[in-house]
Amino acid sequence: MGLITAEKYKESLADGRVIYYKGEKVENVATHPDLSVCVDVMALDYQMAEAPETRDLAVAKDPETGDEMSRYYYKPQNAEDLLKAYELIVKATELGDGIIPLAKDIGADALNAINITANIMGNKDFVERINNYRKFLQEKDLATCAAVTCVKGDRVLRPSDPRQANPDFYVRVVDRNKEGIIVRGAKIHITGAAYANEMFVIPCRAMSEADKDYAVSFAIPINTKGVTQVCRPFQSQYSSLEFPVDRPVRTHTDSFVIFDDVFVPWERVFLCGEWNHAATMVYNFAVMHRRTGCAYRIPLTEQIVGAAVAIAEYNGVAGVSHVKDKLTNIIIYLETLKSLAKTACYDFVIRGDIAVPDPIATNMAKYHFAHKYHDVIRDLQDIAGGLLVTAPTYKDYQIPKIHDAMDKYLVGKKGISAENRLRILDFIRRLAKTERETIVLHGEGSPMAERMTILMEAQPVLKNCQKLVEKLAGIER
Amino acid sequence: MGLITAEKYKESLADGRVIYYKGEKVENVATHPDLSVCVDVMALDYQMAEAPETRDLAVAKDPETGDEMSRYYYKPQNAEDLLKAYELIVKATELGDGIIPLAKDIGADALNAINITANIMGNKDFVERINNYRKFLQEKDLATCAAVTCVKGDRVLRPSDPRQANPDFYVRVVDRNKEGIIVRGAKIHITGAAYANEMFVIPCRAMSEADKDYAVSFAIPINTKGVTQVCRPFQSQYSSLEFPVDRPVRTHTDSFVIFDDVFVPWERVFLCGEWNHAATMVYNFAVMHRRTGCAYRIPLTEQIVGAAVAIAEYNGVAGVSHVKDKLTNIIIYLETLKSLAKTACYDFVIRGDIAVPDPIATNMAKYHFAHKYHDVIRDLQDIAGGLLVTAPTYKDYQIPKIHDAMDKYLVGKKGISAENRLRILDFIRRLAKTERETIVLHGEGSPMAERMTILMEAQPVLKNCQKLVEKLAGIER
Amino acid sequence: MGLITAEKYKESLADGRVIYYKGEKVENVATHPDLSVCVDVMALDYQMAEAPETRDLAVAKDPETGDEMSRYYYKPQNAEDLLKAYELIVKATELGDGIIPLAKDIGADALNAINITANIMGNKDFVERINNYRKFLQEKDLATCAAVTCVKGDRVLRPSDPRQANPDFYVRVVDRNKEGIIVRGAKIHITGAAYANEMFVIPCRAMSEADKDYAVSFAIPINTKGVTQVCRPFQSQYSSLEFPVDRPVRTHTDSFVIFDDVFVPWERVFLCGEWNHAATMVYNFAVMHRRTGCAYRIPLTEQIVGAAVAIAEYNGVAGVSHVKDKLTNIIIYLETLKSLAKTACYDFVIRGDIAVPDPIATNMAKYHFAHKYHDVIRDLQDIAGGLLVTAPTYKDYQIPKIHDAMDKYLVGKKGISAENRLRILDFIRRLAKTERETIVLHGEGSPMAERMTILMEAQPVLKNCQKLVEKLAGIER
Amino acid sequence: MGLITAEKYKESLADGRVIYYKGEKVENVATHPDLSVCVDVMALDYQMAEAPETRDLAVAKDPETGDEMSRYYYKPQNAEDLLKAYELIVKATELGDGIIPLAKDIGADALNAINITANIMGNKDFVERINNYRKFLQEKDLATCAAVTCVKGDRVLRPSDPRQANPDFYVRVVDRNKEGIIVRGAKIHITGAAYANEMFVIPCRAMSEADKDYAVSFAIPINTKGVTQVCRPFQSQYSSLEFPVDRPVRTHTDSFVIFDDVFVPWERVFLCGEWNHAATMVYNFAVMHRRTGCAYRIPLTEQIVGAAVAIAEYNGVAGVSHVKDKLTNIIIYLETLKSLAKTACYDFVIRGDIAVPDPIATNMAKYHFAHKYHDVIRDLQDIAGGLLVTAPTYKDYQIPKIHDAMDKYLVGKKGISAENRLRILDFIRRLAKTERETIVLHGEGSPMAERMTILMEAQPVLKNCQKLVEKLAGIER
Repeated sequence: MGLITAEKYKESLADGRVIYYKGEKVENVATHPDLSVCVDVMALDYQMAEAPETRDLAVAKDPETGDEMSRYYYKPQNAEDLLKAYELIVKATELGDGIIPLAKDIGADALNAINITANIMGNKDFVERINNYRKFLQEKDLATCAAVTCVKGDRVLRPSDPRQANPDFYVRVVDRNKEGIIVRGAKIHITGAAYANEMFVIPCRAMSEADKDYAVSFAIPINTKGVTQVCRPFQSQYSSLEFPVDRPVRTHTDSFVIFDDVFVPWERVFLCGEWNHAATMVYNFAVMHRRTGCAYRIPLTEQIVGAAVAIAEYNGVAGVSHVKDKLTNIIIYLETLKSLAKTACYDFVIRGDIAVPDPIATNMAKYHFAHKYHDVIRDLQDIAGGLLVTAPTYKDYQIPKIHDAMDKYLVGKKGISAENRLRILDFIRRLAKTERETIVLHGEGSPMAERMTILMEAQPVLKNCQKLVEKLAGIER
Repeated sequence: MGLITAEKYKESLADGRVIYYKGEKVENVATHPDLSVCVDVMALDYQMAEAPETRDLAVAKDPETGDEMSRYYYKPQNAEDLLKAYELIVKATELGDGIIPLAKDIGADALNAINITANIMGNKDFVERINNYRKFLQEKDLATCAAVTCVKGDRVLRPSDPRQANPDFYVRVVDRNKEGIIVRGAKIHITGAAYANEMFVIPCRAMSEADKDYAVSFAIPINTKGVTQVCRPFQSQYSSLEFPVDRPVRTHTDSFVIFDDVFVPWERVFLCGEWNHAATMVYNFAVMHRRTGCAYRIPLTEQIVGAAVAIAEYNGVAGVSHVKDKLTNIIIYLETLKSLAKTACYDFVIRGDIAVPDPIATNMAKYHFAHKYHDVIRDLQDIAGGLLVTAPTYKDYQIPKIHDAMDKYLVGKKGISAENRLRILDFIRRLAKTERETIVLHGEGSPMAERMTILMEAQPVLKNCQKLVEKLAGIER
Repeated sequence: MGLITAEKYKESLADGRVIYYKGEKVENVATHPDLSVCVDVMALDYQMAEAPETRDLAVAKDPETGDEMSRYYYKPQNAEDLLKAYELIVKATELGDGIIPLAKDIGADALNAINITANIMGNKDFVERINNYRKFLQEKDLATCAAVTCVKGDRVLRPSDPRQANPDFYVRVVDRNKEGIIVRGAKIHITGAAYANEMFVIPCRAMSEADKDYAVSFAIPINTKGVTQVCRPFQSQYSSLEFPVDRPVRTHTDSFVIFDDVFVPWERVFLCGEWNHAATMVYNFAVMHRRTGCAYRIPLTEQIVGAAVAIAEYNGVAGVSHVKDKLTNIIIYLETLKSLAKTACYDFVIRGDIAVPDPIATNMAKYHFAHKYHDVIRDLQDIAGGLLVTAPTYKDYQIPKIHDAMDKYLVGKKGISAENRLRILDFIRRLAKTERETIVLHGEGSPMAERMTILMEAQPVLKNCQKLVEKLAGIER
Repeated sequence: MGLITAEKYKESLADGRVIYYKGEKVENVATHPDLSVCVDVMALDYQMAEAPETRDLAVAKDPETGDEMSRYYYKPQNAEDLLKAYELIVKATELGDGIIPLAKDIGADALNAINITANIMGNKDFVERINNYRKFLQEKDLATCAAVTCVKGDRVLRPSDPRQANPDFYVRVVDRNKEGIIVRGAKIHITGAAYANEMFVIPCRAMSEADKDYAVSFAIPINTKGVTQVCRPFQSQYSSLEFPVDRPVRTHTDSFVIFDDVFVPWERVFLCGEWNHAATMVYNFAVMHRRTGCAYRIPLTEQIVGAAVAIAEYNGVAGVSHVKDKLTNIIIYLETLKSLAKTACYDFVIRGDIAVPDPIATNMAKYHFAHKYHDVIRDLQDIAGGLLVTAPTYKDYQIPKIHDAMDKYLVGKKGISAENRLRILDFIRRLAKTERETIVLHGEGSPMAERMTILMEAQPVLKNCQKLVEKLAGIER
């Protein structure tokens, strides 16, 4: 009862789920050569609850019963709860060498968003169902994911618009009966779905009345009949061209999830036709999920900082003015992110009885990270120099004659070996992948989504400022 | 004993001080047509301590004696103290229609910087003197200013460098005797010096041993013999071309202060030859003074926000996508400033027994404000439109025939009168003056100074990140 | 016949025109204390045609008759013509100490835009009228201006939209008869209108059929009955606080022009109801007018460059890395402008039989200038330092005691006098006025207008690139 | 005599050269599975001289003898020559699907730089040798490369500084005799060296007298004894995860070139100890090589433009305002590059009797391209959306069940198939590789190198502007 081990989590994955990867059906994600890499990452969350040095951070207690539970599934009430969760995500990501384990983060964001929506609606059924489901997750300690983004078709058109090429671009209810509902559609970009236990589904946009069949939210086990996933491929091993490193590869993968007339029992349905509440749900999910994003990106950004400092030293240019300028840019980037992420916790708001990080600060943190990321990568590549893409490889280094020439000629600053310089360049190449650029932009919502939210949330500030200025300008309205 | 009234402050200024303004010697700053405008601004700080609704913020109690004092002269011990001071500055600036009253802010920054330096040096004499002086200020409730920036001559050369055109570009000790020291030199950009009671003097840079005569800090009354000030002119009335506004002009002026062999008694000397501590003093002053800067700029920035929102509405373009984009930029600018300013308080550090705002966040807040200001002004001018510089004036509006044409033709959005639109344009012209651009850049230190401080203060972060990355890259050193 | 003298131009202005300035009616702009400053600037164009060293540039010959005429009224046929016009504007602006004389520039842009539209329409009447009018201008050598921007009211609404607060926000035809038409409305931002001889009026936007009464273009003498102008005030003398300079003030002023049922004879009407050609006219005007803008801004930008270089030297910081960085930014700003302005000439297009500078390059040049201007000003102010806004004035300099202190203390780099340093700061204050920032943004069209034009004009490029990429990606459509 | 065929070029590569790739010695680059890809690219230059439609561009005639030769080896005399060369590079790169063939481009840049230096030195021997060598290249039509960047060691130290870890970080003369010289050292980033015929070697920096052994330039066949190359690995085939495309992979590779006591006969030595001319050589090489860079990046940039336009359409967001904004940014990026590149030709300068593109415009073009590239990539990734990194692959598409779901669900805009959308995303992934980001920054010199050159070359402009401003400010010096 309560917390489970990493081992038990891994065992739970052999449940008949339907997963495709590189054109083949996967027998068991936990033993698959590539996907097991992701499973190991997710397992870190379970290990944190076991390890004495991280247990305090990872585990919360029910204030009434004293029962232990994963902190992710604890309902946040105040700034302290939010700061704890923030620290937990940061620490977990550090343990993941820059990759957030994600066993419960996004799931918790969806759980809270659903809970807030039910509370705001004041719908007793929904409130009871989501509370029961929260208790279920607390007790079973399951790994969860959240399927949010529908495939959308033509984005300018509403889900129900007859001009859409088909009516299934957004997940929708196609039938309903006493036991539950039948849903159809497809979701995209669903991180961790292939190796979680349960999947939340929530709408990905505001809905109009005509879209009411699309205003649907629920939770189902990953192995539910009719659910098929296709995972995005990735490299699960360091290249043999790189200097060998004694660290596991850390990564996640995203799924394209197809819902082929999937049955969901009523006790797992959290929205079904209440079209005017779809926006509340996705909106609050977005805020909390962006908070998650900002937290996990801090350790990743620290890697960028460290890589820039190291290669500047190794290249012998740490004292050059334009290099110091670029290092200053990078540190400003990191510290702005940290400041906004913490401000979001301090300035929390209460929504539907749950503490939510300040939406303006949260969206600004995510926007900052995304919008300025390419500048930081440019500065890193600038400091690293052309050797980043022209250096001989570890394969060449194994040829004695070439080995000697590399040792002699590829030294930068005296006292730092050529090997170490090449190692840091290997690291930077892994760090500054183009895939990351796109994830940074679009993960947790695109830059434009954050800008729109900032402007919307700032309306009271704008109005107050306008009134102030009108007073100062002698304007009466 | 303790707090004094605004009236008493004004009376105190007729003390024989030597002030020049627009080429003439000023009899009494408190009654001078222009300078009395500044005196009224400074008096706001005294009024806040009198007014019931601001008294709590403006007044602190000695934790031991229970004596009341201006909060500015209270020694900050923790985040709460810093947040209170921050709120006090914000509120005072709001009461000043965007101009900080400054009766004690910069003085307090100097007071604390001197106190920190004395504590760190462990020099009992200096500690005793500055504590006595703090008590003196608490009891007399005097208005203080701080003279920091020397005229510098050739900035690339040290103060004592014989290649300097003369040896007096930095204030220095030219003689000393039993009673005290004689100082000579000149300071520039000294805000409020013409209408304060006391003036702190501290060094404006790190010193080498050869510069030890320049490592000098002290405090003197403004009317001390040998002190001459020349003030920068400004407009003390709204132009007759503008629509009349029933608000006083709010502004400060800066002095060029000449020290012509000025005598300072030993009990007011806080540094005299300890060249290796000059940096500590100016450095800590800079951090605290930049904190002051960031706080007072928030209400000013809110005016920019309000002006942009108002003119966008009045012009009828509030819903246009590029206008919304610019409003979003401006709100991000404001909220980033607020986030960094508050983070600086939460993440305070203790230096020489005094709570100092986090230097990285503080410098980033100042740098952010300065570096992005012109972008915000550009966005404001862009939204305002060309009418900002081509509109007919209030003088024209008083001619009936032209009045009618203006009322008819200069309406933007239906329902907002032409007069109100022209009023907001008048306001924006006053707000977006070129002088402010320069003050934003150079006030409290130029952008480069902040960047250098950020990089220096971030060294521990940089080192930690480098070590982390070296571990991840398999590098052993 | 043909070219006239500056004197004759000035005499021509006492023609009964109705001009208001600072709330008073102006008797004669040529002798008015302020407005005569602008008249002197405009007169420079006439002086150039007289002066031997500029005559070649200022005067063109009719290729058929050999008659001399102002180059402005010459119909451009090729890259060489455009480059000559570009050089003429640059030179004229240099003679105006950075202010373009404007006697014929904007008028010529309107003249050519009308000519192109008539040619494209193939309307013989209009072609004949505009050719006659061109000949008239060539022969009389009159100063012209162009009234383009209507006051607009609610910008989101069309001119004829009944939701507009009144129907006259855009100049429109209110009546017509055998002799001509009657027009009503108001134009804003009309530079030079108070001291030109003739005024072109063209529409300022595309029109729909419902707006056809607003699709009107014509030319009238400035003193036409029913035309009233209100001019924007400016300073016509250097401030007595500044070091005296032996150069005339150079500036223009903009008019708010009211058309109170003004009669225009048919031979001066160039568009009247042909709503679907309004866009052609304003669009081509915009391209040519932006070309004018880019040319005249080059000498202005050279002043920014020179001011930055001078104050960097005087402050003794010319060798500091961040200052060199800022100087590099400023030079890049200048050279990008020059490159785009010249590319626009080389890559000209023929429209309606007239050579028009490449619209993409032209709009990019204007956009570049406007969008980056504030950055350049920021860099200049950064290099200049706080003294820019705190320095004692020339009035103080006249007091012997203060004079000596200023001479001693306000020196930067050894060998450059304090006076010269203060002179350059005076110059920078005049140069970096906030008014200029707004003019740079909105003059010749706002940045958004240029961006929209660039995207529209680039459609063929975009399509070609798309096709190329589809081929490379193996896509058949 | 004269031009040779692509076939003959390929045959010439089996000459015993010593090349390592992925840890193995390469038998014949022309038949090696990976390196033959590069050979095919280089061969395009030879094919252009054969193909009727490109022959005119690719072939020049000796003005005296009328002999045909590759245009690359023709000595440019004026703007027209430079524009022709520019067009040739653009066209060649288009034929290379965005990759410049490079058979002679960089070699020609070195050839001309050496020629200019010899002419400026007035050294008859050097002039004769380089003229002979030019004739040799014209007659044999050989493929050339240029080895410029030395491995450098500690970049802050001079080549001869005893604090360098070894004396061979810059290529140097270790011995000399009647027949020639012996050189030692290593060069890095040498594009195309593995499959050219001849290699130019020039210094990569200014030299002091102490460095005179490092002031050495020469040309040698690639297969010269003692020369060893290690090539950077790359992918020579499209991934099986991508939709198959019927286009060859186009790419180059860079070599790490080791000179292990290599003998060079005197007739191939172009600099040997004339340390004060090293800067001239590398500096002029840099200008011309950056010109080459700017030209070949135009077709590459057109691919970015096309990809952005295509995916915007396919995603159905072409009409959304922020997308139009980003497309405008990208088109401005392209057109600025084109404008600067052409301005560089029009405003050419003559150096040592050879026409060189304007150094300011050339360096600005390269800087522009490099500095803004990441912004453009960010905009492209932003428009493309998250599908760029989460989409199922072609392998998945081959499973019928998944195929159907992809066809149904991954459509964006109605009428564009899911396959085509996925194809364009595959293309964007190939286009926006992180390696390209680094090449864009460092290829042809890093951004800082260009900034320094711009500032240096702009000195006359700066001085003129300063003088102008001093005159306007009333300053006499």
